[in-house]
Amino acid sequence: MQQEQYIDKNMPSLISDLKELIRQPSVSAKNLGLEECAMLVVQIMIKSGIHAEILRLGQDIPPAVYGEVRSKKNPNKTILFYNHYDVQPEEPLELWRDPPFSGKVRGNKIYGRGSADDKGELVTRIKAVEAFLKTDGDVPCNIKFLIEGEEEVGSMHVEEYLKRYQRKLSCDGIIWEFGYVDEKDRPIISLGMKGLLYVELSVQESVRDAHSSLAVLIENPAWRMVEALKTLRDKNGKILIKDWYKEVDAFTREELGVIAQEPFDEKSFKKEYGVTRFVGNKKGIDIRKAVVGDPTCNIAGFSSGWEGPGAKTVLPSKATVKIDFRLVPKMDPLKQLSRLKRHLKEKGFADVQVHMIHGEAASRTAISDPFVKIVKKAADESFGTSVVSVSSAGTGPMYSFSKVLKAPCISVGSTYVYARIHSPNEFARIDLLRKTTKCMCKIIRRFSS
Amino acid sequence: MQQEQYIDKNMPSLISDLKELIRQPSVSAKNLGLEECAMLVVQIMIKSGIHAEILRLGQDIPPAVYGEVRSKKNPNKTILFYNHYDVQPEEPLELWRDPPFSGKVRGNKIYGRGSADDKGELVTRIKAVEAFLKTDGDVPCNIKFLIEGEEEVGSMHVEEYLKRYQRKLSCDGIIWEFGYVDEKDRPIISLGMKGLLYVELSVQESVRDAHSSLAVLIENPAWRMVEALKTLRDKNGKILIKDWYKEVDAFTREELGVIAQEPFDEKSFKKEYGVTRFVGNKKGIDIRKAVVGDPTCNIAGFSSGWEGPGAKTVLPSKATVKIDFRLVPKMDPLKQLSRLKRHLKEKGFADVQVHMIHGEAASRTAISDPFVKIVKKAADESFGTSVVSVSSAGTGPMYSFSKVLKAPCISVGSTYVYARIHSPNEFARIDLLRKTTKCMCKIIRRFSS
Repeated sequence: MQQEQYIDKNMPSLISDLKELIRQPSVSAKNLGLEECAMLVVQIMIKSGIHAEILRLGQDIPPAVYGEVRSKKNPNKTILFYNHYDVQPEEPLELWRDPPFSGKVRGNKIYGRGSADDKGELVTRIKAVEAFLKTDGDVPCNIKFLIEGEEEVGSMHVEEYLKRYQRKLSCDGIIWEFGYVDEKDRPIISLGMKGLLYVELSVQESVRDAHSSLAVLIENPAWRMVEALKTLRDKNGKILIKDWYKEVDAFTREELGVIAQEPFDEKSFKKEYGVTRFVGNKKGIDIRKAVVGDPTCNIAGFSSGWEGPGAKTVLPSKATVKIDFRLVPKMDPLKQLSRLKRHLKEKGFADVQVHMIHGEAASRTAISDPFVKIVKKAADESFGTSVVSVSSAGTGPMYSFSKVLKAPCISVGSTYVYARIHSPNEFARIDLLRKTTKCMCKIIRRFSS
Repeated sequence: MQQEQYIDKNMPSLISDLKELIRQPSVSAKNLGLEECAMLVVQIMIKSGIHAEILRLGQDIPPAVYGEVRSKKNPNKTILFYNHYDVQPEEPLELWRDPPFSGKVRGNKIYGRGSADDKGELVTRIKAVEAFLKTDGDVPCNIKFLIEGEEEVGSMHVEEYLKRYQRKLSCDGIIWEFGYVDEKDRPIISLGMKGLLYVELSVQESVRDAHSSLAVLIENPAWRMVEALKTLRDKNGKILIKDWYKEVDAFTREELGVIAQEPFDEKSFKKEYGVTRFVGNKKGIDIRKAVVGDPTCNIAGFSSGWEGPGAKTVLPSKATVKIDFRLVPKMDPLKQLSRLKRHLKEKGFADVQVHMIHGEAASRTAISDPFVKIVKKAADESFGTSVVSVSSAGTGPMYSFSKVLKAPCISVGSTYVYARIHSPNEFARIDLLRKTTKCMCKIIRRFSS
């Protein structure tokens, strides 16, 4: 096809656009470079022939980018691409081989924070649309983009954007911001996402740090935190908070059928992460069931006292812990939060402060939705084969999209499963960027016919 | 007395020398400014008329400063002042009112890291000797100084200095590097110090940080650490490691008598630290017994994962904990270390790495030693009253001194009990610096006669 040829010929321009995006730091957790990155995205889209504009909800809220191309030949069907221009913090710096915002290319890989998540994915969507415009002067159906700047801190305002611009964003199908490609180069077509409850727990015992010889008298907040945490989860990962699993449904037979076919290369996964066993000693299909459907209670950060080199004999005044709980469909983040608070109170830890940083419900698109077949066929053609997954283990605001726009959401993309997203030396594979750009063309074509 | 008048007249010079010392950062935990500070100490001592020189053990070991004045009239008796020129790290920076190395004077207080611990104490000893030299041209007995640069990281080499320079440092009595002054302005004459075992525990679960959605599979090292820590100590502070207390002696009747008389202003202590209760809900004499004789297990630092602002959904690869165990006489740091290691192994935590950063035994000078009476009388005269204490809650290498030099060690000094040593806004009280300088003169005089 013409578009696929165009894509092959114009890969250098895709790489250079991606580099430019990586070189613009846009760390939402630090409120760093967001305006600048949004403007850059608008420029790159306009260069590709896409009408692009900045959407705003208010001064203190990072802007979103809206993009649109109306189809001349088929103006009654619309596909929406959801992406984000913000990235995770780049720390720990000392573990990066190249500066995190350099966009260094080595062979088939382009390195940098955001190279995969999500700037790499974003350019594949933009370049797919560009391919139609530069070859046909038209697109097979209407194209819309919503590119937000708060995904990595929990997409706090995306639902508000969706509601405020509901008519503008109306569509018939949504392609999600990312998609994994497994170790055998098969794209994972994921139909759902887990929810998230992200909290910060803190304990303060005294008004200031003290000499640690006073540990005979003054309570240590890190010890207090250890005591409190120990009540939340058993060593197999089971969450011990009352009613935590109350609304969780068992998998349907259809879902179990798909899960049974989902591949999971245990050996290469273990090698990649350097682990020899899994939480709770999971084996066989239980591994895949856990990835799709297990809630978690993960300590994302623990900070107290002296963390530098050598010995400081200090009794810290405060301990802070960040926990992310992954949720599955029907678990309401706010209800789970109140269960956590009640639990701490009942266990005698009323002094442990709980601050919710983010809450988001889980979402799943039905396996039977016709959009699933369209995406599956396009992916099979582009990659040779593909895998359908009931749900990703990750989180995104998919629930808000399906609720407000009432369209099926499917996640498919270019992110190699070991691309080190959220970690040092994140990279995107150039061969997968190319295949995914072509896959987006095929999805648009099939969706329009 | 002439010397006391000299001290009153020359307080501005004491303050300016102390300021100069504070302004020279000398953080042993960071290996920062140690050479420079040792040189500065030598200069200040020479200016005061004390012969001073640098002692070295090797290139990578911070130098010690040796000081000496031989008495013309009484060359057969020697008192040794032990001090240190290094300081604790200045963090957390944001809680300092003035820059930590500024030496800002506000009213009766001089602020800065090291103002009390131990640069303030050091200048009182130097100025006491200067007072004799500048008024009499002689000292009542031989004076020696040993000023080391690694006290805040555990005095790793002081025993080697003592052994290498044993003849040079030989003496009949040792005045320790610090002494507390309580909230009623009574100096605490402390006859002992606790020991210390400082370890770093670490757990690594995977070779690198991962996206926290993988918490369904990959073990979290912070959780693992919480599990391990929970086995070390109960919530009342009791250490649960087998045989931990095996060698600990009960207090003698003489010690109990002194402890019963030791004052402890519970109300002002609680107010100062903003606490309402003590570990294990201790009350009455149990508080004082704990300060003098309870071993502790203190979490001095806990570090894992994302510790910055906002939400990072990360599954950390590593968790690190620093623990300081305070020890009492007869507890051998190395034996306790092997008990800790055995405990972790037996409880199933062989994967928790234990790295000893420092070990030091506890020491106590007998209440009946004649040196105790000399110091007590001098302190009573200088401060109006004083308090004898069986042991400080803190740690220092007193055991090495008494073992190598075979002389009684007594701690007496100018450090106000709420002087915030090791914490932001550390300060020295100028009135106490003056009284302590005079007290040192009186000790030297009484000791010589």
